[in-house]
Amino acid sequence: MTSREQHDRMANAIRFLSMDAVEKAQSGHPGLPMGCADIATVLFTRFLKYDAKNPHWPDRDRFILSAGHGSMLLYSLLYLTGYEDITLDQIKHFRQVGSRTAGHPEYGHAAGIETTTGPLGQGLANSVGFALGERIMNAAFGNDLVDHYTYVLAGDGCLMEGVSQEAIALAGHLKLNKLIVFWDNNNISIDGPVSLADNTDQVARFQASGWNASHIDGQDPEAIAYAIEAARHSDKPTMIACKTTIGFGAPTKAGTNKAHGSPLGAAEIAGARKFFSWDYPPFEVPADILDAWRDAGKTGVKARADWEGRLAKADAQLRSEFERRISGTLPANFDAVITDYKKKLAADKPKVATRKSSEMALEIINGAVPETIGGSADLTGSNNTKTSQTKNITSDDYGQRYVHYGVREHGMAAALNGLTLHGGLIAYGGTFMCFSDYARPSMRLASLMGIRSIFVMTHDSIGLGEDGPTHQPVEHLAALRAIPNHNVFRPADAVETAECWQLALEQEKTPSTLALTRQNLPTVRNDFVAENLSRQGAYQLAAASGDAAVTIFASGSEVEIALAAREALEKHGHPTRVVSVPCFELFDKQSADYRKKTIGNAPIKIAIEAGIRQGWDHFIGTDGIFIGMTGFGASGTIEQLYPHFGITAEATVKAAEARLHGE
Amino acid sequence: MTSREQHDRMANAIRFLSMDAVEKAQSGHPGLPMGCADIATVLFTRFLKYDAKNPHWPDRDRFILSAGHGSMLLYSLLYLTGYEDITLDQIKHFRQVGSRTAGHPEYGHAAGIETTTGPLGQGLANSVGFALGERIMNAAFGNDLVDHYTYVLAGDGCLMEGVSQEAIALAGHLKLNKLIVFWDNNNISIDGPVSLADNTDQVARFQASGWNASHIDGQDPEAIAYAIEAARHSDKPTMIACKTTIGFGAPTKAGTNKAHGSPLGAAEIAGARKFFSWDYPPFEVPADILDAWRDAGKTGVKARADWEGRLAKADAQLRSEFERRISGTLPANFDAVITDYKKKLAADKPKVATRKSSEMALEIINGAVPETIGGSADLTGSNNTKTSQTKNITSDDYGQRYVHYGVREHGMAAALNGLTLHGGLIAYGGTFMCFSDYARPSMRLASLMGIRSIFVMTHDSIGLGEDGPTHQPVEHLAALRAIPNHNVFRPADAVETAECWQLALEQEKTPSTLALTRQNLPTVRNDFVAENLSRQGAYQLAAASGDAAVTIFASGSEVEIALAAREALEKHGHPTRVVSVPCFELFDKQSADYRKKTIGNAPIKIAIEAGIRQGWDHFIGTDGIFIGMTGFGASGTIEQLYPHFGITAEATVKAAEARLHGE
Repeated sequence: MTSREQHDRMANAIRFLSMDAVEKAQSGHPGLPMGCADIATVLFTRFLKYDAKNPHWPDRDRFILSAGHGSMLLYSLLYLTGYEDITLDQIKHFRQVGSRTAGHPEYGHAAGIETTTGPLGQGLANSVGFALGERIMNAAFGNDLVDHYTYVLAGDGCLMEGVSQEAIALAGHLKLNKLIVFWDNNNISIDGPVSLADNTDQVARFQASGWNASHIDGQDPEAIAYAIEAARHSDKPTMIACKTTIGFGAPTKAGTNKAHGSPLGAAEIAGARKFFSWDYPPFEVPADILDAWRDAGKTGVKARADWEGRLAKADAQLRSEFERRISGTLPANFDAVITDYKKKLAADKPKVATRKSSEMALEIINGAVPETIGGSADLTGSNNTKTSQTKNITSDDYGQRYVHYGVREHGMAAALNGLTLHGGLIAYGGTFMCFSDYARPSMRLASLMGIRSIFVMTHDSIGLGEDGPTHQPVEHLAALRAIPNHNVFRPADAVETAECWQLALEQEKTPSTLALTRQNLPTVRNDFVAENLSRQGAYQLAAASGDAAVTIFASGSEVEIALAAREALEKHGHPTRVVSVPCFELFDKQSADYRKKTIGNAPIKIAIEAGIRQGWDHFIGTDGIFIGMTGFGASGTIEQLYPHFGITAEATVKAAEARLHGE
Repeated sequence: MTSREQHDRMANAIRFLSMDAVEKAQSGHPGLPMGCADIATVLFTRFLKYDAKNPHWPDRDRFILSAGHGSMLLYSLLYLTGYEDITLDQIKHFRQVGSRTAGHPEYGHAAGIETTTGPLGQGLANSVGFALGERIMNAAFGNDLVDHYTYVLAGDGCLMEGVSQEAIALAGHLKLNKLIVFWDNNNISIDGPVSLADNTDQVARFQASGWNASHIDGQDPEAIAYAIEAARHSDKPTMIACKTTIGFGAPTKAGTNKAHGSPLGAAEIAGARKFFSWDYPPFEVPADILDAWRDAGKTGVKARADWEGRLAKADAQLRSEFERRISGTLPANFDAVITDYKKKLAADKPKVATRKSSEMALEIINGAVPETIGGSADLTGSNNTKTSQTKNITSDDYGQRYVHYGVREHGMAAALNGLTLHGGLIAYGGTFMCFSDYARPSMRLASLMGIRSIFVMTHDSIGLGEDGPTHQPVEHLAALRAIPNHNVFRPADAVETAECWQLALEQEKTPSTLALTRQNLPTVRNDFVAENLSRQGAYQLAAASGDAAVTIFASGSEVEIALAAREALEKHGHPTRVVSVPCFELFDKQSADYRKKTIGNAPIKIAIEAGIRQGWDHFIGTDGIFIGMTGFGASGTIEQLYPHFGITAEATVKAAEARLHGE
């Protein structure tokens, strides 16, 4: 057998596993695996540095299937090369509840799935974080421990999505030359030929953003190998435009959108078997080909062993720091550092915006936790995301800790996910909360994957003032709280901000959003308490002088208003409690007793938040009083806006007393 | 005075009004108006076709300030040229509550503000819809009635946002040659030099997407004029990269990020006055310059009068159709057409997915309403957005009614807004509901502007099956309902789908989202009722056999489950009502009596929706039973998934009976 025959048969193993699995599931996307099998075979047999039996080896090359609908390509590769999570049985149960082989590759379902993809453009945009993470870790730990490539397979859809431009511009700017993207240039999208909707010269576009880019025959193994070899020695990121045929080998559907997203049907598959002279029953891979694939899965064994040798011989402190960071564990003194800082705050009682409190907390955190990587989508001075420790990462110096992401909220969020998934880093990035809408698809994926990306969202209400309703979040707190497995923190002062940051860093399997004010706020937690009270999500901040007639729940900047309303109500003889609610999600995880006690039995329950009511009924019931927004904000000074929208202590007192007097 | 001196002084009037207004407000962005005053002056004095006293003239050229933070540029122009909405007093009350001169330009606040901008990239992406709308209307009504340009001023931020790539790729593909974009190429973003985050060759990038693009000195009036003249005769859209100095004229802040987003301060403004020899007090424009500007505001008077003459002489039917469409009024027979269709449905009782019901409704609507423009972000066959009347719009044929937007959900949503704002068209576009996240920033702006964009969101729950949690909306209904002034419709069958489409088309000041299923559903509205019952947002679909022990609220695909649960509960002797809830927002607008009656007094209230609970407490109270999702979905067949997540009639009955038995 010539090496070309061997290549073809190995590639065909991918093609038939993919066709057969989609056919059995009666659901899925055979076209991409059939068209890209050559690219994948060349990559996984000749270039990718991996060890299928040790899939978490930190210095492995990463392979990211950005065109996630082609999941059977990845599952086939993982099975063929011998990853233990993906057995033939898993392939046979493609797209069934309980299988690791979900419709789209899901991070955590199996080793070898580096990130969750499917929503188009996300994998490509994640890859910028992966490739940047590699460079940052390389700068910290040297070539001996960190030196790997990030390979991406992206489709036409990935490149049409706007986030692709954010990603490629950022990668080009940062000269991430170990990032290598294959574009599956098959001219077909779901609606038909790509030319129905696009005539972009993608190669020229990537070049305009600082990439190497060129066209190749994406089904010619030697052309693929040559292009990869060149890309590995480039000083820029590389995009290889691989001309392929979608559904290659399907007699009538190849090259058409009919091969994209549905089972080919028995006749087409039979035709493909004939075309490829593949005389094996469904799911059967001939022994010699399976052996060849299993050998490919072992090509990295030596490299991995050598790497382990180098790690073992490395300076003990360096090694233990590397291992700590890769494990995701915080430094041992982290809690003590935060507690000390809280003591200082209790003494200082700063009256600053929580965005400033966040900067102060980060100054402490970034000093204690060397793996944090900060950044902002061109709002550094407004998001207060930069501290004394975080200098700019540039293409000349990856040994720093701050990324100017540009006006690219979506690309930033996707890159944060990539940095986080790479391992060894804790990444946070800032923008205005209103623009969380731009970043939302990636924020959702962080939640679905269960990873520790941290989103710093300042200017969290009408309190931002004159920029007006285009910039004023109203529905965003509710919309972010709606995302499962996403902690939305809205601290009320510098103490809660420190506590919320502590919690965000602790949560290894939940991303966090910190909602922070533009405007100054007083310290409401005046007495030092070692315990992180925000951990409970909601807690009694001020007790009533007697049996509570009123309980006021509030978050963030409105806690100050709640306390002022309480004071007035108490003066008028109405015992009133205040409950601070920095995090709905953590409150929901408390015991029923704690929740019941915290909500309490006051006949009048009020919630104050400069956002919409949605979600607050949980605390105040459907007949509770809500002081907040019912529509969009307005452009004006903060002094104008809070009274304009009736979010004041006076309005709260008035509403409470109207109810107390039975109106 | 030479014409250059005249130009300079006219441009300086913009500069000083902008500096002075920002200074008085102590808030705002002086840098862009100072740098772009020359571009604006050339455009508004020599090219733009407008009549300041008749600002709604349908055939005016459009000017879109995509870099919306430079709002004082636009307000200055509107005041100087004599738009009545923007008086000097408005300029003096820049960014104050109640002023038309909001922080960012807000559609509806003043004539001449063609779209709301501020969130970066949106204006540029809207402009694709404006320019396409012009071509579509031109094809329908001819050069005599529709023949105008769309000019856009975009900043570095607009071009860094991913949506810009979606927009320019689409505009290039459609060869929208009457779209002319000025890029304020000032090298400065908020964090500092653009080079901190970007090295993109923007001219090359636009060229790669099928645009003309070239560099000019953006402060040389003749270079600007020459470039505009060339652009107006191009067969492609044009991007003019205008090299400018941000804050031009400010002695120490010009050319730096200090001129971007804060008042310059008295010393800088005094320095600028000296630099430009502008010896007038704040807000004063010398009479000769104001006169010259007011004359510019009248340059379109003749063109407008000529146009009115042509309209008056046009074929009477064409004229009345043009006027009807521009007014936004539906055809007179629209209601009758829908009522007839509902009669047919009551007879046919189709058992189809609501995405198919939507296609059936659109087949009727597109036949009756010639101004609808359909489209999809590359999911035409899945979104069912195409009907027999809507053939593809191409660069060779704008006289059609369907846009293949490509895999560009965000660009599509922004283009829908532009098509809608252009006037004369009703635009809808489809994607999977999960990817409403990608489109969300533009969907929010549609809501803020109060315009009739229609978003068709199919595959609206775990019911989509095998594609898995990356594609299964869970939080999206809640998140979309959170947006103020946005009607989220989730019809239960073909009849409700027709009603919801009718409502979406009727709502001239509220955008709509239609949430539609992939899976088949039975007709639940079996008897013909002429009245649009969905108009109330929620209504009793099935009465209880006696005093209701249980009320079940449900939307969309879960109404079928609610009816099955009701049947079982009735059989077990528990009188049970079912309330169908196609639209929360419309229900909230009903009378208190209607709402009270519809919610009713049943001791047990249950809501069923294959999404999260958030928002449903409004119907069932905090102690109501919710049958739905609490986290992300899974990949599997629909037959597996509904039982897997406990969303079944059996689970509903069990939960009800447990409560009935006091468990």
